[in-house]
Amino acid sequence: MSKVMAHIDQNKKRYQDELFELLRIPSISADPDRAADIRRAAEFVKAKLAAMGCQARIYETPGHPLVYGEWLGAKGRPTVLFYGHYDVQPPDPLELWHSQPFEPTVRDGNVYARGASDDKGQFLANVLGVESFFQTNGGPPVNVKFLIEGEEEVTSTNLEHFVAANRELLKCDQIVVSDTAQFKPGYPAICYGLRGICYMEVFLRGANIDLHSGEYGGAVPNPANELSRIIAKLHDPKTGKVAIPGFYDDVVELDPKERAELARLPFDETDYKKRLDLTALPGENGYSPIERTWTRPTLDVNGLTSGYQGKGAKTVIPAAASAKISMRLVPNMDPKKVQKQFEDTIRSLCPPYINVRFANFGMAKPVVVPSDSPALARARAALEKGFGAKSVIVRSGGSIPVVETFKTHLGVASLLVGYGLPDDALHSPNEKFSLEDFHRGIRTAAHLLEELAK
Amino acid sequence: MSKVMAHIDQNKKRYQDELFELLRIPSISADPDRAADIRRAAEFVKAKLAAMGCQARIYETPGHPLVYGEWLGAKGRPTVLFYGHYDVQPPDPLELWHSQPFEPTVRDGNVYARGASDDKGQFLANVLGVESFFQTNGGPPVNVKFLIEGEEEVTSTNLEHFVAANRELLKCDQIVVSDTAQFKPGYPAICYGLRGICYMEVFLRGANIDLHSGEYGGAVPNPANELSRIIAKLHDPKTGKVAIPGFYDDVVELDPKERAELARLPFDETDYKKRLDLTALPGENGYSPIERTWTRPTLDVNGLTSGYQGKGAKTVIPAAASAKISMRLVPNMDPKKVQKQFEDTIRSLCPPYINVRFANFGMAKPVVVPSDSPALARARAALEKGFGAKSVIVRSGGSIPVVETFKTHLGVASLLVGYGLPDDALHSPNEKFSLEDFHRGIRTAAHLLEELAK
Repeated sequence: MSKVMAHIDQNKKRYQDELFELLRIPSISADPDRAADIRRAAEFVKAKLAAMGCQARIYETPGHPLVYGEWLGAKGRPTVLFYGHYDVQPPDPLELWHSQPFEPTVRDGNVYARGASDDKGQFLANVLGVESFFQTNGGPPVNVKFLIEGEEEVTSTNLEHFVAANRELLKCDQIVVSDTAQFKPGYPAICYGLRGICYMEVFLRGANIDLHSGEYGGAVPNPANELSRIIAKLHDPKTGKVAIPGFYDDVVELDPKERAELARLPFDETDYKKRLDLTALPGENGYSPIERTWTRPTLDVNGLTSGYQGKGAKTVIPAAASAKISMRLVPNMDPKKVQKQFEDTIRSLCPPYINVRFANFGMAKPVVVPSDSPALARARAALEKGFGAKSVIVRSGGSIPVVETFKTHLGVASLLVGYGLPDDALHSPNEKFSLEDFHRGIRTAAHLLEELAK
Repeated sequence: MSKVMAHIDQNKKRYQDELFELLRIPSISADPDRAADIRRAAEFVKAKLAAMGCQARIYETPGHPLVYGEWLGAKGRPTVLFYGHYDVQPPDPLELWHSQPFEPTVRDGNVYARGASDDKGQFLANVLGVESFFQTNGGPPVNVKFLIEGEEEVTSTNLEHFVAANRELLKCDQIVVSDTAQFKPGYPAICYGLRGICYMEVFLRGANIDLHSGEYGGAVPNPANELSRIIAKLHDPKTGKVAIPGFYDDVVELDPKERAELARLPFDETDYKKRLDLTALPGENGYSPIERTWTRPTLDVNGLTSGYQGKGAKTVIPAAASAKISMRLVPNMDPKKVQKQFEDTIRSLCPPYINVRFANFGMAKPVVVPSDSPALARARAALEKGFGAKSVIVRSGGSIPVVETFKTHLGVASLLVGYGLPDDALHSPNEKFSLEDFHRGIRTAAHLLEELAK
């Protein structure tokens, strides 16, 4: 291992160059106009896997392509499948970026770029950890497979079908996903639980055109006012709970033991508020912020659009109003059931003279894995060596749909080993990734291969 | 008059060419990037007034310029001031226009263009009516003044100061404003009442950046959810009334006589709904649609903006959310008092962890003039000759701030003589103006000069 680690340390600069090259590709999966860039990112990953010694190929899907790679030269040893995603969130709002989102820029030891932490930097750390064995020992101590998708940010639309249809190809003993974060600097973390998601858009329509608010104000329905009224009724103001009938029916309450463990984590509420410039952390009554983000379901407006959004005044009653609304789900909520509850509730709140329709932009089931498995213990050991710090176990409020998919179709649990930080500004302007953490991630990946070979 | 009318009929084509030339100038007052086009429109109007025989000049303001013209050659006769505005609303949403908003296009006898009816076509009809006397009789039978402003669509920000500072210049016996509409085709109308306006934007802010809705959902305030909650509370769902404390304190209730007159107007609710593709006309309980739009105050969201508005899904908790909200006011509401009531109410509804600020995009007082004055009778006579149809008297739900301004500073009431139609799509895509009504408007203006000379 000392040879491998020395090699990793010597190649620090080259690793960064490779990361920057990948970050320059605007592989925004939500934007249909970026299909060529998505393709370019997929080709980049395939070429990287092939160059280091894997058999690699691209699998087409009805959406964006999947990259698959494998090296099965460690006869009799376990097989580890690394999952990651080469697609990124849209960079909007652009004007808030301090440097171009697709021109990686280093400030204070961090690289700033869309996708730096989510997930290009993290999955590339695993790829490079494997590469270090090819370049020093002829190959890793375990068999490796890579599945790097291009639709994670649009809730992995086509991945489940691919996994279900390719069980033999993807067969493995352990899955490693690096798309989560450390608890905070100096607290590398293994994640054992993820929330699910149901992402909807509601479209309301009143009259057939925008109308002069003077001539028509008072006589016609206003879908923007109605939308506000409907959204307002989706929460109970007293309890902070989501007010969709049946929403909590399947929610598994936190057990006292786990609750006590969460309370022991070094969460600094003052620092958290300061970092976000907030004076309070409101939410569902009776739960701490960590409990609310990791173990409780939520409903949040992610976007509102109606009427005139330009400068100054335009006196129109909008013809239409729409809201993007995502719900984060916890075990044992079923996203399809939640979608129906959501649509039924909105329909029941919508007055008859307003036309309503819906779009669904993705679903993922929540997942929690045992926090005391031998694999998790090995991952903690690797992480502690890679980062030189004691690890903690955490849950995450985010969704990584593939974890549930792997569990269902391959029967294998995922190890969620995160190299990022909670303030990496995922999905926000000025996303970043610590270059030191990138390097520690590569070291961790190498240690993890050795641990999993045991 | 027969010579004048014959001249008007002979020049139909030229009048249209001149109108189209003016409509090609995108003089959008709300858009700071259109300052040069605003200037171009002002120069066009000035040149037109000068060419036909008036002394004309441009007055600068801190905002957009005013065009003033006069001809005082009718010694001993009354002076009539014509008011209009050369600025237009923004054309958004562009994709709903069937032809370019600034390339006038004729379909079915209508010219389609932004500003066709509001107000370029209407004020130009008055200008051309005056011109017809210059070209046939050496000059009109009364003294004429023109005041054509460039900020009507941004609630005439600088006009009041100009009028107050130029009382001598603007001194007149009668004011004519053509910025309203016929009641419906075949029912030319004089308007005796306008609503006022108070146009606000509310800006809410939560965290300092957009946040990942998975990582943060449940722990941080969501300004889009909060904005919806606040807007929802601005109406009483039971009565349809605006739920701002004190909002109705100064509202003058409709008297039974006027109510009966309004009920006699040939308002076709079925046709109105059909035209707008609506199944109901909701609003304040206990009032008809005409009463609600003309004589009752309203509050409408004119625009909503928050978070991600692009295609597909982006899972962010927005840092900010904003709403453009206009309130239409009736006698004797005071826009400044309403602004304070509005701000106080929003502040009281806003939770302490959300930052709130406001912008005001304009104010106008409501105004109602006597419906039985001699001047109004003369205007009705001119309108009936110009249109060849019996006239009706109406109120309007819109705001023409200058009417109140003229009343206050010049002590002169305005005659609101409208040539447009209620379905001209003012402020909407595909604004239009009937070319036949444009021609009838020119004829009406000429008759009106003769009537007012009596």
